[in-house]
Amino acid sequence: MKTHIENILKDMENDDLQAYLLTEFTNIEYISNYKPTSFAFCFIKDDPVIYASGMDMELANRDSSIEVKEFVSFKNIIDDFKKEGIRNLAIEPTLPFNHYEKLKDDFEITSKTYINKQRMIKTPEEIYNISKATEIAQKSFLQLDILNNENTEKEIAFDLVRFMIENGAFRESFDTIVTSGANSSLPHAVPSGNKLSDPILIDWGCIYNGYCSDNTRTMVYTEKQYEIFDIVREAHDKAIKAIKPGLKCCEVDKIARDIISDYGYGDRFIHSTGHSLGLDIHETPGFSVRDDTVIEKGMVITVEPGVYLENEFGVRLEDTVCVSGGAEVIGDLPLVID
Amino acid sequence: MKTHIENILKDMENDDLQAYLLTEFTNIEYISNYKPTSFAFCFIKDDPVIYASGMDMELANRDSSIEVKEFVSFKNIIDDFKKEGIRNLAIEPTLPFNHYEKLKDDFEITSKTYINKQRMIKTPEEIYNISKATEIAQKSFLQLDILNNENTEKEIAFDLVRFMIENGAFRESFDTIVTSGANSSLPHAVPSGNKLSDPILIDWGCIYNGYCSDNTRTMVYTEKQYEIFDIVREAHDKAIKAIKPGLKCCEVDKIARDIISDYGYGDRFIHSTGHSLGLDIHETPGFSVRDDTVIEKGMVITVEPGVYLENEFGVRLEDTVCVSGGAEVIGDLPLVID
Repeated sequence: MKTHIENILKDMENDDLQAYLLTEFTNIEYISNYKPTSFAFCFIKDDPVIYASGMDMELANRDSSIEVKEFVSFKNIIDDFKKEGIRNLAIEPTLPFNHYEKLKDDFEITSKTYINKQRMIKTPEEIYNISKATEIAQKSFLQLDILNNENTEKEIAFDLVRFMIENGAFRESFDTIVTSGANSSLPHAVPSGNKLSDPILIDWGCIYNGYCSDNTRTMVYTEKQYEIFDIVREAHDKAIKAIKPGLKCCEVDKIARDIISDYGYGDRFIHSTGHSLGLDIHETPGFSVRDDTVIEKGMVITVEPGVYLENEFGVRLEDTVCVSGGAEVIGDLPLVID
Repeated sequence: MKTHIENILKDMENDDLQAYLLTEFTNIEYISNYKPTSFAFCFIKDDPVIYASGMDMELANRDSSIEVKEFVSFKNIIDDFKKEGIRNLAIEPTLPFNHYEKLKDDFEITSKTYINKQRMIKTPEEIYNISKATEIAQKSFLQLDILNNENTEKEIAFDLVRFMIENGAFRESFDTIVTSGANSSLPHAVPSGNKLSDPILIDWGCIYNGYCSDNTRTMVYTEKQYEIFDIVREAHDKAIKAIKPGLKCCEVDKIARDIISDYGYGDRFIHSTGHSLGLDIHETPGFSVRDDTVIEKGMVITVEPGVYLENEFGVRLEDTVCVSGGAEVIGDLPLVID
C-alpha cells in the first residue's frame, strides 16, 4: 500500500497536483486497508489522511495504515488544507457531484484516474486472493448436482451461496444468476421461483479476503443450444489464446466479436467481452469496443462472450484470466459440465 | 409513477428547467419500474425517455413504463436534446463527476433533489411492501433460537438470511450484522468466525418486492449491559413517542441524544438516530443533528439509538416507523427477546 501511494504521488507530481481525493470504499481500502462502512474522505498527499465518520473511528483506527481524523465538516477540511497551502485537488472520476460542489469554490479541481491505473496491475497477493476465491466458487458449483434435481432457480442460487460461505468465502461477489429456459436470454436475469428448464445458465462468484471471483457456465440440451454453445466456446477459447501484453483491450474484444459475427450472431452478443476484477467485481480495463488500454502483465480480466436469442435462450461462458506472458485461466472448471 | 413524474415536472417548471437526469438504479426503478443492471440515463421531461445499455434492452422494454432507447453515446444524447431545444439540465446530487463532465459544456447544469423529495413520502403500496419485508425479517429472526446455541456469528448471520429467503424475501437488504462481545462496539461490525459471546447484537433486514426492512435487537446478560440497554430503550421509546408531522427531523434526534447524554453517554452515541428507507436501505430524510426536514405523513424512518463502549460492548435498538398522526412502529417484535 505504501508503494501504491508513492506511485500515485509521482503521477501527481508530474501533473503538479497537491492532493488527490478518494471516496469509493474499495479505493480507500486499497490505499489504507480500512474499508469505510458509512462514508470517508481519503486524501493522498505528502502526508496522507482519511477523514472518517464518527461511527467508524474505532474501526478506522484499528485497520488504517495512514492517519485518520474524525470528519467534522467540509469547511473544516478546507480550512486544514488552506493552512497547508493546498490550492488544487485531483478527484476520482466517480466523485458524486454534491461533494464536488462543496469543494469547487476553494480548489482548482481535475478528475484523474491515478487510482484506477494502480488497481489495474494486481500484486501477487491480490492474484492469490482472486485465485482462492475462484477455487472456492468452483468447488461450490460442483457440489450443486444441478443436472439431477427438481429445484427452482432461486433454490439453486441460494444453495450455491451457502456452499461458498461454508467453503470459506466472505459472501457472494454479486447477486448470483441462476436462469434457465427463455429467461436465460437476459444477461443479468434474476433467479425465479420456477423449476429449472433448459438451458441452465449460472453466473456466480464469491469474495475471499476482500477479492472477487467471477465465472459463468451454461448447460445445454437441444441441438440449437449445442450449436450456439460451440460458437461461444470458440470465441472464449480464441480470445483467451490471443491475450498478451502489448495488445489493446479492444483487439481482444474484436477477436471474440468477429467469431460470433462470422456465424451470424454479432447483433446477439450484446455486451463487452470482459471486465477486470479485484476488490470490486467490475474494474477497468475491460475487453470492450471502446477500451484501447494496452494489456500489461498482472492484469486480471474476465473473458465472457455470450449469444442471447430473445424469447428463446442465452449462452455465456466466462473465465477469469491473469496476464503474464500470455493469459492464464484462473481455476480449472471445465466448460462442459457432465 | 405517472404522478411522480407529474410532480417532478411541476417542480422543474417552477425552476424553469427543461430536463432532469437520473442515473441511480433505484431512482430509475422508482420512475419507470425498470431497474437497470448495467447503466442507464433517465431523463424526465415533457416526453420522458431512458437511454439503456444494449444488454438491458430486452429487460427495459419488458419493464419500463416510459420510452426506452438504446444508449449509443453522450454525443448522441446531446444531439437529440439540441434538436428539442433543451438548454438546461437538472441532475441528481449524486451524479458521478465523469458524467457531469460529459454534459457540462452543452447544458447549464444544476443539482436538484426533486427525486428525493418524491421518494420521501411513501404511497400505501410502498408502505405495504416495507411492512411485508419487516414481517418476513422479524418472523425469520424468531426462528433463530439464538439463546441456546453454539454457533458462530457468521453461521447465525447465514441462517437468518436463509430463513428470510425461505419466508419469501428476495434477499437481505444489507450485509447482516451479527456481532457479540467486544466486537459489538463497532456499529457496522462484520460477523466473525467466533462463537457467540455476550451481549449479542443483530442488525438485519430483507427486501420484499424491491422494498427494504431494517431492525436491530441486542440481547444483554450482565448488570452493566442491562443498565445500558435500559438507557437505549428509553431513548428509543421517547423518540418514537415524540415523532409527529410538523416536527423537524433534528428535533427527534435531539430527544434521543439528550436522554443518552443525561446518563453520561452522549459521546458514545456515535451515529444518527435514524434514516429513511424504501427501495434503498438509506434514504433521506434522517433523524440527525443537521437534518432540518419537516416530518410529514407517509415518511418511513428508522429509530435506532445506540451506546458503544470501546473494547467493552455496544447496545443498539432499532425499529422502523411510519408517520401518520404520530409514528406507528412497523412490525411487532418486542425489544426484549426471551
